[in-house]
Amino acid sequence: MKAQPLIIDCLQYSLWSEKIFREMNKGGVAAVHVTICYHENFKETIQNLIDWNRRFEKFPELILPGRTADDVRRAHHEGKTAIIYGFQNCSPIEHDVGLVEICYQLGARFMQLSYNNQSLLATGCYEDEDPGITRMGRQVIREMNRVGIVIDMSHSAERSTLEAIEVSERPITITHANPASWQPALRNKSDTVLRALGSSGGMLGFSMYPHHLKNGSNCALDDFCAMVARAADLVGVEHIGFGSDLCQDQPDSIVAWMRNGTWTRDTDFGEGSSTLPGFPDQPLWFGNNTDFGGILKGLHSVGFSDDDVARIAGGNWLNFFENSFAAGVTP
Amino acid sequence: MKAQPLIIDCLQYSLWSEKIFREMNKGGVAAVHVTICYHENFKETIQNLIDWNRRFEKFPELILPGRTADDVRRAHHEGKTAIIYGFQNCSPIEHDVGLVEICYQLGARFMQLSYNNQSLLATGCYEDEDPGITRMGRQVIREMNRVGIVIDMSHSAERSTLEAIEVSERPITITHANPASWQPALRNKSDTVLRALGSSGGMLGFSMYPHHLKNGSNCALDDFCAMVARAADLVGVEHIGFGSDLCQDQPDSIVAWMRNGTWTRDTDFGEGSSTLPGFPDQPLWFGNNTDFGGILKGLHSVGFSDDDVARIAGGNWLNFFENSFAAGVTP
Repeated sequence: MKAQPLIIDCLQYSLWSEKIFREMNKGGVAAVHVTICYHENFKETIQNLIDWNRRFEKFPELILPGRTADDVRRAHHEGKTAIIYGFQNCSPIEHDVGLVEICYQLGARFMQLSYNNQSLLATGCYEDEDPGITRMGRQVIREMNRVGIVIDMSHSAERSTLEAIEVSERPITITHANPASWQPALRNKSDTVLRALGSSGGMLGFSMYPHHLKNGSNCALDDFCAMVARAADLVGVEHIGFGSDLCQDQPDSIVAWMRNGTWTRDTDFGEGSSTLPGFPDQPLWFGNNTDFGGILKGLHSVGFSDDDVARIAGGNWLNFFENSFAAGVTP
Repeated sequence: MKAQPLIIDCLQYSLWSEKIFREMNKGGVAAVHVTICYHENFKETIQNLIDWNRRFEKFPELILPGRTADDVRRAHHEGKTAIIYGFQNCSPIEHDVGLVEICYQLGARFMQLSYNNQSLLATGCYEDEDPGITRMGRQVIREMNRVGIVIDMSHSAERSTLEAIEVSERPITITHANPASWQPALRNKSDTVLRALGSSGGMLGFSMYPHHLKNGSNCALDDFCAMVARAADLVGVEHIGFGSDLCQDQPDSIVAWMRNGTWTRDTDFGEGSSTLPGFPDQPLWFGNNTDFGGILKGLHSVGFSDDDVARIAGGNWLNFFENSFAAGVTP
């Protein structure tokens, strides 16, 4: 096996700390797409960006702002980790298509069109009905295409996702999910979606969040890697990577907030249940950013070549960033 | 004919001025439901409330804040006009079900679940698809029922409206629209909706906005009054009133803003067109708040009794306010 390839994890929402940043560096993780918001409006999102500005100030030897593929290469070269901003909801743009470009200018490179519920743009995977992309959704997709914010449909419902692939003039992503054929979670994706994603040049990031894994916290690494191999056949080996959904060191109150935000007075347990309301335990083979090496070995074991492992580890995401983060053609 | 009955207009959005308030008083209009917002978020809505606080300060002999049916009776007794706040969109509550009660405490008594587009709660009448009330929508309806904010589906789509009637434990309203069987505008309502509205104890306010009238600006008063008579048969004479949608003295830029807000980079002409983008001319028989008397005469002419005219003029709305603006039973 060659030297460990450049690694990119295209979704984490940990309780950020020096410890975690050091683990990213130690694990050779050149870039992490970090979640900036779940429910926050524009102003609340700004506060989260201020918090990141403070972290960049405090840990310049560990992390740097990731705005371009070159930033990721630079981080890799310097043994640091590029932090790429993404929104798991469209709440930061509120009612204003003009905020799309403002968010890009502030560093956002990914935005989900909906979280679990109906949004102004698209439908979330927990709604009973999915009417597809809305009137405002079509406007916002066009604007995201123009400025260079990538569409992420990880938490969106099926029809909305298929329509986003069709409406968007640039490839889209599902940054953190697995095939539903492997683990039939509401958040995992049908073969129809995964085929459409791959054939349109989009990217799938494999989730290591236990509710998305076969056998949950007890998922075997072999099983995970075999799933990746099958997904490579379905989506294309050039269109897959990691999107671990790692929520390291977060208290259980955070997953309750992700699910309930301020939209309900009932308690929604999402993928959990009243008896298992908190974060599930991570599988033994993925607890933090130093564990990617073991997964890469597992991918070799199921038959991936060195080149393919390097693609999955980070090469595919890096290519995708290269093509996606610059401004597109004005429609 | 008896003395002119108490008049209530359950929707106006004029360029508010002393002149208009004096016309309200002169016309015997005891209460007007005024639109506080179309697209504004919570903070922007607050600014609109501040503007109203200044008007109440400046014109205490003309207008007073309308929070209860008694406020309307007091205004009528004193020859003033009670101003009742309503939202034409759910944008002021943003993502937060807790803001429903805050808005009530600030005086809001009506809220549309959606304007022309998809909202977080329900679908607007300009969307191609209508999936009905969303997950958050069900939460918000329950909270509106609890605190005493009336659901208004004037700009919502058919299925969402029927589901709102069903989900809400208190009667709802369509404050400003007409039967689509009379004038097939996208904003007017089907017989199915109108029957369900009336039989559930809800209220329909008749619009005098030209795009909702047969023959538009040239609509004859006779025609309008004959439509009211047919609607009384359909909805019930106890469930109808006025909701004129009067936008007196507003510049055309306002109707463009109503339609486009900040959600699109294209130009949406709504009920207008590129050749008729502005406000249409009001029908000759309804230009301002002094014109209700003529309409009441017209209602007599098509056969309504004095009692029924008094109901339609304001009695029905007053009863509805009595039953709707107090806190409901906690679910």
